[in-house]
Amino acid sequence: MKTVILGSGNVAYHLAKAFTEKNIPIVQVFGRNEAALKEISSLFNIPHSTSVLADADLYLIAVKDDAVAIVSEEITKKDCLVAHTSGSLPKEILKGNYRKASFYPLQTFSKTKNLVYEEIPIFIESDDAGDLEILKNLAANITEKIVLSTYEKRKYLHLTAVFACNFVNHLYARAQQLADEQQIPFEYFWPLIEETTLKIKELPPKEAQTGPAVRNDLRILQLHEELISDENSLEIYRTMNQSIKKMYEL
Amino acid sequence: MKTVILGSGNVAYHLAKAFTEKNIPIVQVFGRNEAALKEISSLFNIPHSTSVLADADLYLIAVKDDAVAIVSEEITKKDCLVAHTSGSLPKEILKGNYRKASFYPLQTFSKTKNLVYEEIPIFIESDDAGDLEILKNLAANITEKIVLSTYEKRKYLHLTAVFACNFVNHLYARAQQLADEQQIPFEYFWPLIEETTLKIKELPPKEAQTGPAVRNDLRILQLHEELISDENSLEIYRTMNQSIKKMYEL
Repeated sequence: MKTVILGSGNVAYHLAKAFTEKNIPIVQVFGRNEAALKEISSLFNIPHSTSVLADADLYLIAVKDDAVAIVSEEITKKDCLVAHTSGSLPKEILKGNYRKASFYPLQTFSKTKNLVYEEIPIFIESDDAGDLEILKNLAANITEKIVLSTYEKRKYLHLTAVFACNFVNHLYARAQQLADEQQIPFEYFWPLIEETTLKIKELPPKEAQTGPAVRNDLRILQLHEELISDENSLEIYRTMNQSIKKMYEL
Repeated sequence: MKTVILGSGNVAYHLAKAFTEKNIPIVQVFGRNEAALKEISSLFNIPHSTSVLADADLYLIAVKDDAVAIVSEEITKKDCLVAHTSGSLPKEILKGNYRKASFYPLQTFSKTKNLVYEEIPIFIESDDAGDLEILKNLAANITEKIVLSTYEKRKYLHLTAVFACNFVNHLYARAQQLADEQQIPFEYFWPLIEETTLKIKELPPKEAQTGPAVRNDLRILQLHEELISDENSLEIYRTMNQSIKKMYEL
Protein backbone atom coordinates (compact mmCIF):
# COMPACT_ATOMS: atom_id res chain seq x y z
CA MET A 1 0.00 0.00 0.00
CA LYS A 2 1.36 3.40 -0.99
CA THR A 3 0.98 6.10 1.66
CA VAL A 4 1.56 9.86 1.39
CA ILE A 5 1.71 12.26 4.35
CA LEU A 6 0.48 15.80 3.73
CA GLY A 7 1.95 18.31 6.16
CA SER A 8 5.33 19.02 7.70
CA GLY A 9 4.51 19.99 11.29
CA ASN A 10 4.93 18.04 14.51
CA VAL A 11 2.29 15.38 13.75
CA ALA A 12 3.53 14.84 10.19
CA TYR A 13 7.10 14.60 11.50
CA HIS A 14 6.26 11.98 14.12
CA LEU A 15 4.05 9.91 11.79
CA ALA A 16 6.87 9.87 9.24
CA LYS A 17 9.32 8.89 11.98
CA ALA A 18 7.07 6.20 13.47
CA PHE A 19 6.35 4.54 10.12
CA THR A 20 9.96 4.72 8.96
CA GLU A 21 11.17 3.15 12.18
CA LYS A 22 8.87 0.22 11.50
CA ASN A 23 10.00 -0.03 7.87
CA ILE A 24 6.63 1.09 6.54
CA PRO A 25 7.49 3.07 3.40
CA ILE A 26 6.01 6.52 2.95
CA VAL A 27 6.12 7.43 -0.74
CA GLN A 28 6.09 11.19 -0.17
CA VAL A 29 5.73 14.03 2.30
CA PHE A 30 3.86 16.87 0.63
CA GLY A 31 3.28 20.43 1.80
CA ARG A 32 4.10 24.10 1.46
CA ASN A 33 6.93 24.52 3.98
CA GLU A 34 9.94 23.37 1.97
CA ALA A 35 12.44 23.67 4.81
CA ALA A 36 10.33 21.50 7.12
CA LEU A 37 9.67 18.99 4.33
CA LYS A 38 13.38 18.77 3.55
CA GLU A 39 14.12 18.04 7.19
CA ILE A 40 11.65 15.14 7.31
CA SER A 41 12.85 14.03 3.90
CA SER A 42 16.50 13.85 4.83
CA LEU A 43 15.96 12.44 8.33
CA PHE A 44 13.70 9.59 7.26
CA ASN A 45 14.71 9.20 3.60
CA ILE A 46 11.28 10.07 2.21
CA PRO A 47 10.81 11.98 -1.09
CA HIS A 48 9.14 15.36 -0.69
CA SER A 49 7.37 17.88 -2.88
CA THR A 50 5.68 21.24 -2.60
CA SER A 51 3.99 21.01 -6.02
CA VAL A 52 3.34 17.53 -7.40
CA LEU A 53 1.39 15.17 -5.17
CA ALA A 54 2.49 11.56 -5.61
CA ASP A 55 0.07 8.80 -6.47
CA ALA A 56 -0.96 6.75 -3.42
CA ASP A 57 -3.63 4.48 -1.94
CA LEU A 58 -3.77 6.39 1.33
CA TYR A 59 -3.25 10.07 2.07
CA LEU A 60 -2.78 11.16 5.66
CA ILE A 61 -3.48 14.86 6.18
CA ALA A 62 -1.53 16.10 9.22
CA VAL A 63 -1.96 19.88 9.08
CA LYS A 64 -3.57 22.52 11.28
CA ASP A 65 -7.35 22.23 11.60
CA ASP A 66 -8.12 25.30 9.56
CA ALA A 67 -5.96 24.05 6.68
CA VAL A 68 -7.41 20.52 6.46
CA ALA A 69 -10.23 21.38 4.01
CA ILE A 70 -7.97 23.39 1.67
CA VAL A 71 -5.20 20.79 1.69
CA SER A 72 -7.71 18.02 1.07
CA GLU A 73 -8.59 19.67 -2.24
CA GLU A 74 -5.10 18.93 -3.50
CA ILE A 75 -6.10 15.29 -3.76
CA THR A 76 -7.93 14.90 -7.08
CA LYS A 77 -7.62 11.12 -7.28
CA LYS A 78 -10.89 9.27 -6.63
CA ASP A 79 -9.88 5.68 -5.92
CA CYS A 80 -8.05 6.31 -2.71
CA LEU A 81 -8.54 6.72 1.04
CA VAL A 82 -7.94 10.09 2.71
CA ALA A 83 -7.71 10.46 6.50
CA HIS A 84 -7.07 13.57 8.57
CA THR A 85 -5.41 13.49 11.99
CA SER A 86 -7.48 16.17 13.75
CA GLY A 87 -9.27 15.60 17.02
CA SER A 88 -11.90 18.21 16.34
CA LEU A 89 -13.01 17.83 12.74
CA PRO A 90 -15.53 15.45 11.12
CA LYS A 91 -14.21 13.37 8.26
CA GLU A 92 -16.73 15.17 6.03
CA ILE A 93 -14.50 18.26 6.20
CA LEU A 94 -12.42 16.53 3.53
CA LYS A 95 -13.30 17.98 0.09
CA GLY A 96 -13.02 15.40 -2.66
CA ASN A 97 -14.57 12.34 -4.24
CA TYR A 98 -12.31 9.84 -2.49
CA ARG A 99 -13.18 7.70 0.56
CA LYS A 100 -12.95 9.68 3.80
CA ALA A 101 -11.64 8.72 7.20
CA SER A 102 -10.07 9.91 10.42
CA PHE A 103 -6.78 8.77 11.99
CA TYR A 104 -6.33 10.54 15.32
CA PRO A 105 -3.28 9.84 17.48
CA LEU A 106 -3.94 11.00 21.06
CA GLN A 107 -0.64 12.56 22.05
CA THR A 108 1.17 15.90 22.28
CA PHE A 109 3.84 16.14 19.62
CA SER A 110 7.02 18.21 19.68
CA LYS A 111 9.71 17.55 17.11
CA THR A 112 12.54 17.65 19.59
CA LYS A 113 11.00 15.09 21.92
CA ASN A 114 11.21 11.35 21.35
CA LEU A 115 8.06 9.32 21.90
CA VAL A 116 7.14 5.72 22.65
CA TYR A 117 4.73 5.23 19.78
CA GLU A 118 3.57 1.79 20.94
CA GLU A 119 1.61 3.35 23.80
CA ILE A 120 -0.13 6.12 21.86
CA PRO A 121 -3.82 5.33 21.31
CA ILE A 122 -4.87 5.89 17.70
CA PHE A 123 -8.57 6.51 17.09
CA ILE A 124 -9.80 5.56 13.63
CA GLU A 125 -13.09 6.27 11.88
CA SER A 126 -14.55 5.24 8.55
CA ASP A 127 -18.00 4.23 7.30
CA ASP A 128 -16.48 1.35 5.37
CA ALA A 129 -15.36 -1.93 6.95
CA GLY A 130 -12.60 -2.39 4.37
CA ASP A 131 -11.20 1.07 5.00
CA LEU A 132 -11.30 0.49 8.73
CA GLU A 133 -9.23 -2.62 8.11
CA ILE A 134 -6.69 -0.60 6.11
CA LEU A 135 -6.37 2.00 8.87
CA LYS A 136 -6.23 -0.66 11.55
CA ASN A 137 -3.42 -2.50 9.78
CA LEU A 138 -1.52 0.72 9.28
CA ALA A 139 -1.94 1.81 12.91
CA ALA A 140 -0.98 -1.66 14.12
CA ASN A 141 2.53 -1.05 12.81
CA ILE A 142 3.14 1.70 15.29
CA THR A 143 0.83 1.15 18.26
CA GLU A 144 -0.84 -1.55 20.30
CA LYS A 145 -3.81 0.66 21.11
CA ILE A 146 -6.24 1.07 18.21
CA VAL A 147 -9.75 2.27 18.99
CA LEU A 148 -12.72 2.72 16.67
CA SER A 149 -14.19 6.15 17.15
CA THR A 150 -16.66 8.69 15.83
CA TYR A 151 -16.54 12.45 15.41
CA GLU A 152 -18.83 12.79 18.43
CA LYS A 153 -16.44 10.78 20.59
CA ARG A 154 -13.35 12.41 19.14
CA LYS A 155 -14.53 15.88 20.09
CA TYR A 156 -14.68 14.79 23.72
CA LEU A 157 -11.33 13.01 23.49
CA HIS A 158 -9.80 16.25 22.34
CA LEU A 159 -11.58 18.36 24.96
CA THR A 160 -10.43 15.99 27.71
CA ALA A 161 -6.89 16.12 26.33
CA VAL A 162 -6.97 19.91 26.58
CA PHE A 163 -7.61 19.60 30.33
CA ALA A 164 -5.15 16.76 30.91
CA CYS A 165 -2.35 18.11 28.73
CA ASN A 166 -2.61 21.71 27.46
CA PHE A 167 -3.96 23.16 30.72
CA VAL A 168 -1.59 21.05 32.82
CA ASN A 169 1.33 22.39 30.80
CA HIS A 170 0.07 25.92 31.30
CA LEU A 171 -0.03 25.31 35.07
CA TYR A 172 3.60 24.23 34.82
CA ALA A 173 4.35 27.45 32.94
CA ARG A 174 2.61 29.57 35.59
CA ALA A 175 4.36 27.58 38.34
CA GLN A 176 7.72 28.21 36.69
CA GLN A 177 6.88 31.91 36.47
CA LEU A 178 6.20 31.97 40.22
CA ALA A 179 9.44 30.08 40.92
CA ASP A 180 11.47 32.32 38.59
CA GLU A 181 10.18 35.45 40.33
CA GLN A 182 11.62 34.09 43.60
CA GLN A 183 14.84 32.75 42.08
CA ILE A 184 13.74 29.24 42.99
CA PRO A 185 15.11 26.66 40.51
CA PHE A 186 12.12 25.02 38.82
CA GLU A 187 13.98 21.67 38.92
CA TYR A 188 13.10 21.45 42.62
CA PHE A 189 9.52 20.72 41.56
CA TRP A 190 10.29 17.91 39.12
CA PRO A 191 9.97 15.04 41.63
CA LEU A 192 6.68 16.52 42.87
CA ILE A 193 5.39 16.93 39.31
CA GLU A 194 6.43 13.42 38.37
CA GLU A 195 4.85 11.93 41.49
CA THR A 196 1.58 13.81 40.90
CA THR A 197 1.38 12.23 37.46
CA LEU A 198 2.49 8.74 38.47
CA LYS A 199 0.01 8.69 41.33
CA ILE A 200 -3.09 8.72 39.13
CA LYS A 201 -2.20 5.30 37.74
CA GLU A 202 -2.64 3.87 41.23
CA LEU A 203 -5.26 6.19 42.68
CA PRO A 204 -8.08 7.99 40.77
CA PRO A 205 -7.22 11.72 40.73
CA LYS A 206 -10.38 12.56 42.63
CA GLU A 207 -9.10 10.44 45.54
CA ALA A 208 -5.51 11.66 45.20
CA GLN A 209 -6.35 15.34 45.75
CA THR A 210 -4.22 17.10 48.35
CA GLY A 211 -3.53 20.76 49.11
CA PRO A 212 -5.12 23.67 50.98
CA ALA A 213 -8.40 23.84 49.00
CA VAL A 214 -9.48 20.24 49.64
CA ARG A 215 -8.54 20.71 53.32
CA ASN A 216 -10.49 23.97 53.21
CA ASP A 217 -7.49 25.65 54.85
CA LEU A 218 -8.67 29.25 54.70
CA ARG A 219 -5.50 30.66 56.28
CA ILE A 220 -3.26 29.32 53.52
CA LEU A 221 -5.73 30.18 50.75
CA GLN A 222 -5.73 33.77 51.99
CA LEU A 223 -1.95 33.83 52.43
CA HIS A 224 -1.39 32.50 48.90
CA GLU A 225 -3.68 35.08 47.32
CA GLU A 226 -1.55 37.77 48.91
CA LEU A 227 1.63 36.25 47.46
CA ILE A 228 0.42 36.18 43.84
CA SER A 229 1.19 39.35 41.91
CA ASP A 230 0.18 38.26 38.39
CA GLU A 231 -3.55 38.75 37.86
CA ASN A 232 -3.87 35.73 35.55
CA SER A 233 -2.22 33.43 38.07
CA LEU A 234 -4.49 34.87 40.76
CA GLU A 235 -7.54 34.19 38.60
CA ILE A 236 -6.34 30.60 38.07
CA TYR A 237 -5.74 30.25 41.81
CA ARG A 238 -9.29 31.33 42.65
CA THR A 239 -10.98 29.36 39.88
CA MET A 240 -9.16 26.11 40.68
CA ASN A 241 -9.81 26.39 44.42
CA GLN A 242 -13.46 27.14 43.77
CA SER A 243 -13.73 24.09 41.53
CA ILE A 244 -11.94 21.86 44.07
CA LYS A 245 -14.29 23.01 46.83
CA LYS A 246 -17.30 22.29 44.62
CA MET A 247 -16.05 18.83 43.68
CA TYR A 248 -15.64 17.86 47.34
CA GLU A 249 -18.71 19.79 48.48
CA LEU A 250 -16.77 22.00 50.90
CA MET B 1 20.70 11.23 68.20
CA LYS B 2 17.22 10.33 69.42
CA THR B 3 14.39 11.40 67.13
CA VAL B 4 10.63 11.39 67.72
CA ILE B 5 7.99 11.93 65.04
CA LEU B 6 4.78 13.63 66.14
CA GLY B 7 1.86 12.84 63.88
CA SER B 8 0.46 9.80 62.10
CA GLY B 9 -0.68 11.13 58.74
CA ASN B 10 0.89 10.78 55.31
CA VAL B 11 3.99 12.87 56.01
CA ALA B 12 4.65 11.18 59.37
CA TYR B 13 4.17 7.78 57.71
CA HIS B 14 6.66 8.49 54.93
CA LEU B 15 9.25 10.09 57.22
CA ALA B 16 9.04 7.02 59.48
CA LYS B 17 9.38 4.77 56.43
CA ALA B 18 12.24 6.72 54.88
CA PHE B 19 14.30 6.80 58.09
CA THR B 20 13.62 3.16 58.92
CA GLU B 21 14.68 2.07 55.45
CA LYS B 22 18.01 3.79 56.02
CA ASN B 23 18.38 2.26 59.50
CA ILE B 24 17.95 5.60 61.25
CA PRO B 25 16.16 4.72 64.48
CA ILE B 26 13.03 6.66 65.43
CA VAL B 27 12.46 6.29 69.16
CA GLN B 28 8.71 6.97 68.99
CA VAL B 29 5.76 8.05 66.88
CA PHE B 30 3.45 10.14 69.01
CA GLY B 31 -0.06 11.38 68.27
CA ARG B 32 -3.79 11.13 68.90
CA ASN B 33 -4.88 8.68 66.21
CA GLU B 34 -4.07 5.32 67.80
CA ALA B 35 -5.03 3.22 64.79
CA ALA B 36 -2.77 5.21 62.47
CA LEU B 37 0.07 5.17 65.03
CA LYS B 38 -0.29 1.40 65.42
CA GLU B 39 0.01 0.95 61.68
CA ILE B 40 3.24 2.94 61.50
CA SER B 41 4.44 1.23 64.65
CA SER B 42 3.94 -2.29 63.36
CA LEU B 43 5.11 -1.61 59.80
CA PHE B 44 8.37 0.06 60.77
CA ASN B 45 8.91 -1.38 64.24
CA ILE B 46 8.73 1.97 66.05
CA PRO B 47 7.24 2.36 69.56
CA HIS B 48 4.15 4.56 69.66
CA SER B 49 2.19 6.46 72.26
CA THR B 50 -0.88 8.69 72.49
CA SER B 51 -0.08 9.92 75.99
CA VAL B 52 3.57 9.89 77.07
CA LEU B 53 6.02 11.66 74.82
CA ALA B 54 9.42 9.98 74.75
CA ASP B 55 12.62 11.84 75.54
CA ALA B 56 14.53 12.86 72.42
CA ASP B 57 17.07 15.28 70.95
CA LEU B 58 14.95 16.07 67.93
CA TYR B 59 11.18 16.23 67.55
CA LEU B 60 9.70 16.32 64.04
CA ILE B 61 6.15 17.65 63.98
CA ALA B 62 4.34 16.26 60.94
CA VAL B 63 0.73 17.24 61.51
CA LYS B 64 -1.80 19.48 59.76
CA ASP B 65 -0.92 23.18 59.74
CA ASP B 66 -3.63 24.19 62.17
CA ALA B 67 -2.50 21.58 64.69
CA VAL B 68 1.22 22.42 64.67
CA ALA B 69 1.06 25.04 67.44
CA ILE B 70 -1.08 22.89 69.75
CA VAL B 71 1.00 19.76 69.20
CA SER B 72 4.20 21.74 69.76
CA GLU B 73 3.00 22.49 73.29
CA GLU B 74 3.26 18.80 74.13
CA ILE B 75 7.04 19.19 74.10
CA THR B 76 8.01 20.56 77.50
CA LYS B 77 11.69 19.66 77.27
CA LYS B 78 13.99 22.65 76.74
CA ASP B 79 17.29 21.17 75.61
CA CYS B 80 16.07 19.82 72.30
CA LEU B 81 15.44 20.79 68.69
CA VAL B 82 11.87 20.89 67.33
CA ALA B 83 11.13 21.15 63.61
CA HIS B 84 7.80 21.23 61.82
CA THR B 85 7.30 19.96 58.27
CA SER B 86 4.86 22.59 57.01
CA GLY B 87 5.45 24.63 53.86
CA SER B 88 3.35 27.54 55.07
CA LEU B 89 4.24 28.16 58.69
CA PRO B 90 7.14 30.08 60.26
CA LYS B 91 9.22 28.17 62.77
CA GLU B 92 8.06 30.68 65.41
CA ILE B 93 4.63 29.00 65.35
CA LEU B 94 6.23 26.38 67.61
CA LYS B 95 5.26 27.09 71.25
CA GLY B 96 7.99 26.14 73.68
CA ASN B 97 11.39 27.00 75.07
CA TYR B 98 13.31 24.56 72.86
CA ARG B 99 15.29 25.44 69.70
CA LYS B 100 13.00 25.86 66.68
CA ALA B 101 13.45 24.81 63.08
CA SER B 102 11.73 23.81 59.87
CA PHE B 103 12.17 20.57 57.91
CA TYR B 104 10.03 20.76 54.75
CA PRO B 105 10.03 17.89 52.25
CA LEU B 106 8.67 19.11 48.90
CA GLN B 107 6.51 16.21 47.78
CA THR B 108 2.91 14.99 47.72
CA PHE B 109 2.47 12.12 50.15
CA SER B 110 -0.08 9.32 50.04
CA LYS B 111 0.33 6.30 52.26
CA THR B 112 -0.46 3.81 49.55
CA LYS B 113 2.10 5.18 47.10
CA ASN B 114 5.79 4.32 47.24
CA LEU B 115 8.26 7.16 46.77
CA VAL B 116 11.88 7.57 45.73
CA TYR B 117 13.02 9.56 48.76
CA GLU B 118 16.48 10.29 47.33
CA GLU B 119 15.00 12.76 44.85
CA ILE B 120 12.77 14.69 47.24
CA PRO B 121 14.20 18.13 48.06
CA ILE B 122 14.16 18.86 51.77
CA PHE B 123 14.22 22.53 52.80
CA ILE B 124 15.67 23.21 56.22
CA GLU B 125 15.68 26.35 58.33
CA SER B 126 17.23 27.26 61.65
CA ASP B 127 18.90 30.36 63.11
CA ASP B 128 21.63 28.19 64.59
CA ALA B 129 24.52 26.77 62.59
CA GLY B 130 24.75 23.71 64.81
CA ASP B 131 21.06 22.95 64.44
CA LEU B 132 21.31 23.35 60.68
CA GLU B 133 24.09 20.77 60.78
CA ILE B 134 21.86 18.38 62.75
CA LEU B 135 19.02 18.78 60.25
CA LYS B 136 21.36 18.51 57.29
CA ASN B 137 22.86 15.28 58.60
CA LEU B 138 19.42 13.85 59.25
CA ALA B 139 18.10 14.82 55.81
CA ALA B 140 21.25 13.46 54.14
CA ASN B 141 20.19 9.98 55.20
CA ILE B 142 17.16 10.08 52.97
CA THR B 143 17.81 12.58 50.18
CA GLU B 144 20.57 14.02 48.02
CA LYS B 145 18.81 17.37 47.75
CA ILE B 146 19.07 19.51 50.88
CA VAL B 147 18.41 23.23 50.55
CA LEU B 148 18.68 25.97 53.17
CA SER B 149 15.50 27.99 53.21
CA THR B 150 13.55 30.67 55.02
CA TYR B 151 9.87 31.10 55.81
CA GLU B 152 9.64 33.73 53.05
CA LYS B 153 11.03 31.30 50.48
CA ARG B 154 9.05 28.36 51.80
CA LYS B 155 5.75 30.17 51.34
CA TYR B 156 6.52 30.54 47.65
CA LEU B 157 7.72 26.96 47.38
CA HIS B 158 4.39 25.83 48.73
CA LEU B 159 2.40 28.20 46.51
CA THR B 160 4.28 27.01 43.43
CA ALA B 161 3.69 23.40 44.48
CA VAL B 162 -0.04 24.09 44.65
CA PHE B 163 0.02 25.08 40.96
CA ALA B 164 2.34 22.28 39.86
CA CYS B 165 0.76 19.51 41.92
CA ASN B 166 -2.61 20.20 43.57
CA PHE B 167 -4.11 22.09 40.62
CA VAL B 168 -2.63 19.68 38.09
CA ASN B 169 -4.24 16.81 39.98
CA HIS B 170 -7.55 18.64 39.97
CA LEU B 171 -7.30 19.05 36.19
CA TYR B 172 -6.82 15.29 35.98
CA ALA B 173 -9.93 14.85 38.14
CA ARG B 174 -11.96 17.18 35.89
CA ALA B 175 -10.55 15.44 32.80
CA GLN B 176 -11.58 12.07 34.19
CA GLN B 177 -15.05 13.45 34.90
CA LEU B 178 -15.35 14.53 31.24
CA ALA B 179 -14.09 11.14 30.06
CA ASP B 180 -16.42 9.24 32.41
CA GLU B 181 -19.43 11.17 31.15
CA GLN B 182 -18.65 9.92 27.63
CA GLN B 183 -17.72 6.38 28.72
CA ILE B 184 -14.18 6.99 27.53
CA PRO B 185 -11.63 4.98 29.59
CA PHE B 186 -9.37 7.48 31.34
CA GLU B 187 -6.43 5.15 30.72
CA TYR B 188 -6.39 6.37 27.10
CA PHE B 189 -4.98 9.64 28.41
CA TRP B 190 -2.13 8.18 30.44
CA PRO B 191 0.51 8.34 27.68
CA LEU B 192 -0.50 11.92 26.92
CA ILE B 193 -0.37 12.88 30.59
CA GLU B 194 3.00 11.19 31.04
CA GLU B 195 4.45 12.85 27.95
CA THR B 196 3.20 16.29 29.03
CA THR B 197 5.08 15.86 32.28
CA LEU B 198 8.23 14.33 30.80
CA LYS B 199 8.44 17.07 28.20
CA ILE B 200 9.12 19.90 30.66
CA LYS B 201 12.45 18.32 31.58
CA GLU B 202 13.62 18.91 28.01
CA LEU B 203 11.65 22.01 27.08
CA PRO B 204 10.55 24.83 29.42
CA PRO B 205 6.73 24.58 29.77
CA LYS B 206 6.26 28.02 28.27
CA GLU B 207 7.85 26.76 25.05
CA ALA B 208 6.11 23.39 25.17
CA GLN B 209 2.58 24.85 25.12
CA THR B 210 0.24 23.29 22.56
CA GLY B 211 -3.54 23.28 22.12
CA PRO B 212 -6.29 25.50 20.74
CA ALA B 213 -5.73 28.54 23.00
CA VAL B 214 -2.07 29.10 22.08
CA ARG B 215 -3.02 28.66 18.40
CA ASN B 216 -5.90 31.07 19.04
CA ASP B 217 -8.19 28.56 17.32
CA LEU B 218 -11.52 30.27 17.97
CA ARG B 219 -13.59 27.55 16.28
CA ILE B 220 -12.37 24.85 18.66
CA LEU B 221 -12.56 27.11 21.71
CA GLN B 222 -16.20 27.80 20.89
CA LEU B 223 -16.92 24.13 20.12
CA HIS B 224 -15.38 23.01 23.42
CA GLU B 225 -17.39 25.49 25.46
CA GLU B 226 -20.54 24.00 23.98
CA LEU B 227 -19.44 20.48 24.97
CA ILE B 228 -18.83 21.26 28.65
CA SER B 229 -21.89 20.79 30.83
CA ASP B 230 -20.34 21.25 34.29
CA GLU B 231 -20.15 24.93 35.22
CA ASN B 232 -16.91 24.53 37.20
CA SER B 233 -15.17 22.82 34.30
CA LEU B 234 -16.45 25.56 32.00
CA GLU B 235 -15.07 28.20 34.34
CA ILE B 236 -11.70 26.42 34.37
CA TYR B 237 -11.81 26.18 30.58
CA ARG B 238 -12.35 29.91 30.19
CA THR B 239 -9.87 30.97 32.88
CA MET B 240 -7.06 28.76 31.56
CA ASN B 241 -7.57 29.84 27.95
CA GLN B 242 -7.64 33.48 29.00
CA SER B 243 -4.39 33.01 30.92
CA ILE B 244 -2.73 31.18 28.00
CA LYS B 245 -3.72 33.97 25.61
CA LYS B 246 -2.31 36.57 27.99
CA MET B 247 0.97 34.70 28.44
CA TYR B 248 1.51 34.54 24.67
CA GLU B 249 0.02 38.00 24.03
CA LEU B 250 -2.67 36.68 21.68
